[in-house]
Amino acid sequence: MVAGATVHKGLDGIIVDESRLSLVNGAEGKLIYSGYKIEDLAANALYEEVVYLLWEGRLPKKDELEALRADIARNAVLPEPVLEMLKSLPKDANPMAVLRTAASALSLYDPDGEDNSPEANRRKAVRLTGQITTLTAAWPRIRSGQEPIAPREDLTLAQNFMYMLTGNADDKTANDAINAYMVLLTEHGMNASTFVARSTVSTGSDMHSAIVSAIGTLKGPAHGGANTEAMKMFLEIGEPENVDRWFEENIKTGKRRIMGIGHRIYKALDPRAAVLYERARALAETAHTKKWFEIADRLDKRARSDQYFIDRNLYANVDYYSAIVLYTIGLDIDMFTPLFAMSRIAGWTAHIMEQQANNRLVRPDVLYTGPMDLPWVPLEER
Amino acid sequence: MVAGATVHKGLDGIIVDESRLSLVNGAEGKLIYSGYKIEDLAANALYEEVVYLLWEGRLPKKDELEALRADIARNAVLPEPVLEMLKSLPKDANPMAVLRTAASALSLYDPDGEDNSPEANRRKAVRLTGQITTLTAAWPRIRSGQEPIAPREDLTLAQNFMYMLTGNADDKTANDAINAYMVLLTEHGMNASTFVARSTVSTGSDMHSAIVSAIGTLKGPAHGGANTEAMKMFLEIGEPENVDRWFEENIKTGKRRIMGIGHRIYKALDPRAAVLYERARALAETAHTKKWFEIADRLDKRARSDQYFIDRNLYANVDYYSAIVLYTIGLDIDMFTPLFAMSRIAGWTAHIMEQQANNRLVRPDVLYTGPMDLPWVPLEER
Repeated sequence: MVAGATVHKGLDGIIVDESRLSLVNGAEGKLIYSGYKIEDLAANALYEEVVYLLWEGRLPKKDELEALRADIARNAVLPEPVLEMLKSLPKDANPMAVLRTAASALSLYDPDGEDNSPEANRRKAVRLTGQITTLTAAWPRIRSGQEPIAPREDLTLAQNFMYMLTGNADDKTANDAINAYMVLLTEHGMNASTFVARSTVSTGSDMHSAIVSAIGTLKGPAHGGANTEAMKMFLEIGEPENVDRWFEENIKTGKRRIMGIGHRIYKALDPRAAVLYERARALAETAHTKKWFEIADRLDKRARSDQYFIDRNLYANVDYYSAIVLYTIGLDIDMFTPLFAMSRIAGWTAHIMEQQANNRLVRPDVLYTGPMDLPWVPLEER
Repeated sequence: MVAGATVHKGLDGIIVDESRLSLVNGAEGKLIYSGYKIEDLAANALYEEVVYLLWEGRLPKKDELEALRADIARNAVLPEPVLEMLKSLPKDANPMAVLRTAASALSLYDPDGEDNSPEANRRKAVRLTGQITTLTAAWPRIRSGQEPIAPREDLTLAQNFMYMLTGNADDKTANDAINAYMVLLTEHGMNASTFVARSTVSTGSDMHSAIVSAIGTLKGPAHGGANTEAMKMFLEIGEPENVDRWFEENIKTGKRRIMGIGHRIYKALDPRAAVLYERARALAETAHTKKWFEIADRLDKRARSDQYFIDRNLYANVDYYSAIVLYTIGLDIDMFTPLFAMSRIAGWTAHIMEQQANNRLVRPDVLYTGPMDLPWVPLEER
């Protein structure tokens, strides 16, 4: 390409494809999954209901929902060699690197691993949705020397996650919070990890490869890693009464940014943040301490009263209050991003199948800015 | 995004970034790495010389080249747990799925795994360049029940590959052919796997994640898998005298396409194909049979005399004659794509470092085509 051409670094505003999966209206702060408002889904839907919606394009009837729930639960068990591999990994490894490696290994034991037919993909999507949840629950146990817990066939995926993490399937407040979190995080348009997943299969590669690419992409602090970074910030602030001083010293001086406030697409309140704000507040009432919610709430209000944040339409995003929800439930902060990944599997797999149904190889152009026509100089003459 | 907007499916012609690494001039059939013609590099350069060129932007002096060669050779050894993991994998697994899994596991044992500083990235790039070669040579031995061979510190990477594959470091014809193949495949602009690697680190993720994404993307038959598909086609044809009939029955009828002929970017002869054509011809002279080269040559000439191919500027691409080179050297055909990956590591790592030096999150837009404003219907009422 010639100099002077337009470089679309970051691909802002470039429409790369059509999708019937979700609409992100950043200007108005709206999010729709296949026709339904995220507020309705978060308030009413089981995670499996949303999975069905994304994969099939409509809400399931009662027996269809039960069939999918049972199918995912039955297929959530890990192949024994993958479980053995997990146990052999360094205990201090980055959990997203562990999840990326284990998800890649799953393909080697999947009977449909190298079959890209729609039928095989649907089976793989079911397995991955269950197995990634099992991996996410297993790792914190394994690294702390506990035995992992196998999934139960009678539970929903959110219940199974809490059961496999803690051994207790009956904490309704926690189960409901995890279900709502998973619903909110399932799908979000053409974000970086979703786009990378679609680009991966655009070469004719397989679903596991695309999920592995997506996990590695989500891992970054500017994407799925932001929830962990937000919680680190709340922990550093430590007490609600420290918020104002912390804001003056770190934000007003321009030294740092608030992790979890501001979003590439949303220039209004992220509707997911509004739902998670209420969940975080409700959970705080039942938790042994309310202070983490209070720190987040106070910092949010402090920022919203600041002219810099008002002028730039900077609002709390999904990572901000989800950090409080996940921390209150008792998750290790470095497990927040794997939880994001396990929730997003249904969206990723839906996008992968959409890409494969109407594919074109993703092959952009680049502006070469290096030297031209250099004569070869033999090694001895350099 | 609103309906009526332009959808850039496949991102054809969309310039996503600047790069000083390579210029692909598809109209004229030219390829330049950081100023140097691919023909000069393939004829003269050691693979490590090209690696230095891409990472540093200039050719190395003699002592610099020797330092890099020794550094890569010293760091090509696999961590013991990764070698153990390899040995535990199913012997019939797809080799690219194996490479993807093992490359992901490497990060867990890399002392710089989660460090994204330029210094750490340079060290990781050296390790990955050596280790992916070692993985690629080890897998065909492991799956056939042979012990893998550790890299030698005194060899070039091409020599080490042949040594670790066969136990023989002294087959100069094969070593030179592998070196030339690796030089030709090292770098090629903003292809799908490279773009996915850059997009992966655009979220702040790490180099191993990006390489794992790239391997999974290269795996597809429309990208790195094309060399294997081309060889399957030559094997199916079987004898040079079958070429014309095969062409009539499969290509003239429109039933199939010729694997390895035609390219998204090149509308002239792929300059890498021209070099590989000569290599394949020379290797055929020393091989026990010339027939695979003869089949490829005859099919190429048959296609080039056909008006359909002439009108559409369809020429043999890099995969077409590289299949013959790799098969003549004795590689299993399902190992061709891992060989592509091991050659491309230097290009991928160079792009990753270029992206990180001047990053913007890759976050395109999408045209929502699903339904709007559906009212929530409770499960019982559906």
